[in-house]
Amino acid sequence: MPYTYDHPHPAVTVDVVVFAISDGRLAVVLIRRAQWPHAGKWAIPGGFVGIDESLKRAAWRELREETGLKAGHLEQLGAFGRPDRDPRERVITVVYISLAAVDRLRLEAGSDAADAKLFFVDELPELAFDHARILGHAVERLRDRLDTQGVVQRLMPQSFTLTELQRACESISGAPTDKRNFRKKLRALDAVEPTGEVRRDGPHRPAQLYRAKR
Amino acid sequence: MPYTYDHPHPAVTVDVVVFAISDGRLAVVLIRRAQWPHAGKWAIPGGFVGIDESLKRAAWRELREETGLKAGHLEQLGAFGRPDRDPRERVITVVYISLAAVDRLRLEAGSDAADAKLFFVDELPELAFDHARILGHAVERLRDRLDTQGVVQRLMPQSFTLTELQRACESISGAPTDKRNFRKKLRALDAVEPTGEVRRDGPHRPAQLYRAKR
Repeated sequence: MPYTYDHPHPAVTVDVVVFAISDGRLAVVLIRRAQWPHAGKWAIPGGFVGIDESLKRAAWRELREETGLKAGHLEQLGAFGRPDRDPRERVITVVYISLAAVDRLRLEAGSDAADAKLFFVDELPELAFDHARILGHAVERLRDRLDTQGVVQRLMPQSFTLTELQRACESISGAPTDKRNFRKKLRALDAVEPTGEVRRDGPHRPAQLYRAKR
Repeated sequence: MPYTYDHPHPAVTVDVVVFAISDGRLAVVLIRRAQWPHAGKWAIPGGFVGIDESLKRAAWRELREETGLKAGHLEQLGAFGRPDRDPRERVITVVYISLAAVDRLRLEAGSDAADAKLFFVDELPELAFDHARILGHAVERLRDRLDTQGVVQRLMPQSFTLTELQRACESISGAPTDKRNFRKKLRALDAVEPTGEVRRDGPHRPAQLYRAKR
C-alpha cells in the first residue's frame, strides 16, 4: 500500500552504539549487513522508526532485533542527516549510545543482521554508510562523560581491580594516566567500593576487587 | 505533485533556540505562529527540512526566514520525536542552539511568523507544541556549557562590566554566585580581558569594561 504526501519526506532511522570494555579495551557492538546497500559490511545496529513509535522505543526494538541485546539506559547522541549518506533515499538517523558490561553481553544476530560481534574501537573493520564518523562522535561523547559515576556503573563488570578500571578509562580517553592521579580522582568521584574479595593471578600480591557504587 | 513511498514516512523539521542576555537576564528569541496548528501562540523558530538540504543548513535558513537573524555557530541539541507532538502528521524535529549578543540582534518577522521577539526565559508565554519541554532541555545544555569560553564570546555584548557578566552567568545557572568565587573562576577560565575603558553611571566609582578574548 503506497503512502502519499504533498511534499517529499525523508526516511528516519535510529542507530544504537553499544560500548563495552573487553580485555581492558573500549569495544563496540557491530552487525554485519545482510542486505543492500553495503551488504557484507559491518555497521552500527539500527533501522527504520515506526510511524507511531517514539525514537527511543525504536532504538530499543532495533537493537533487540538485530543483536539480541536489551538496552539499559539509552542516551541520545544526536541526529545525522547529510543528504547523500544513504543511496536508497534521504535518510536521517537519530543515534543513541548504550553502555554494557561485557560479562552480560550475549550477542545473537537477527533481522537484517547476518552477524553481530564486539570489535575493539581501535581495530575497526570498514564500516557502512557514515558510521565511522558517527562512531567517532560517540567516542567523543563517552570521553566527555567519563568522569561521571554512570559510566563506571554501566560499563564495568560486576567486580574489577582498580588497575583494570584504570586501563578501561585510559582506553576510553586514549591517553595514559598516572596511577596516583587516577586513584585521587576516583576517590573524589566516590564511584566504587571494595567487594571485600581479592583476585589472585600469577605470582603478584592478590588484588583487591571493587564494584561500582549504586 | 504527490510523493509516494511504500512505507509511511515522518516529516522532519529543524528548530533553532537563540539565546541572548538582555538586561543581565537570559532571554530567547520566539516567533508568533501565523498558521494552524497553534496559530497565535509563540514558538521556537523553525520549519521543514528540504529533501536535499543538510540539517544545519535548514536550521540556518529557517532562522533567517522567520526572524531575519543569521545564525553564527549552531550546536545541535538533539532530536525530539514523540509520536503525538504535532497534530498535522508525525513530525520529528532536530533542535539547534545558537548564542547571540543582544547588541547585534535585529529581529524581523517573516515567512510563517507573524512576529518575532525576545522573551526572558523566566517569563515565557504559553508555547506551541512541545516547545516548553525543548526549551527546558536547551537551558540545561547551556548550563552545562557555561564554563567554556565560547559562551562568553558569543553571548555577551562587545563590552561589559564584570558585574554584568556575573549577573548573566547567574541568570543562566539559576543560582547566585559569590563575587570572589566568580572572579576566581573567571581568572582560571581566562576568557575576558579589559578594554581599557570605563563606564560611569550614577554616583558609583566608574566600572572597568571588559571584552571576551578571541
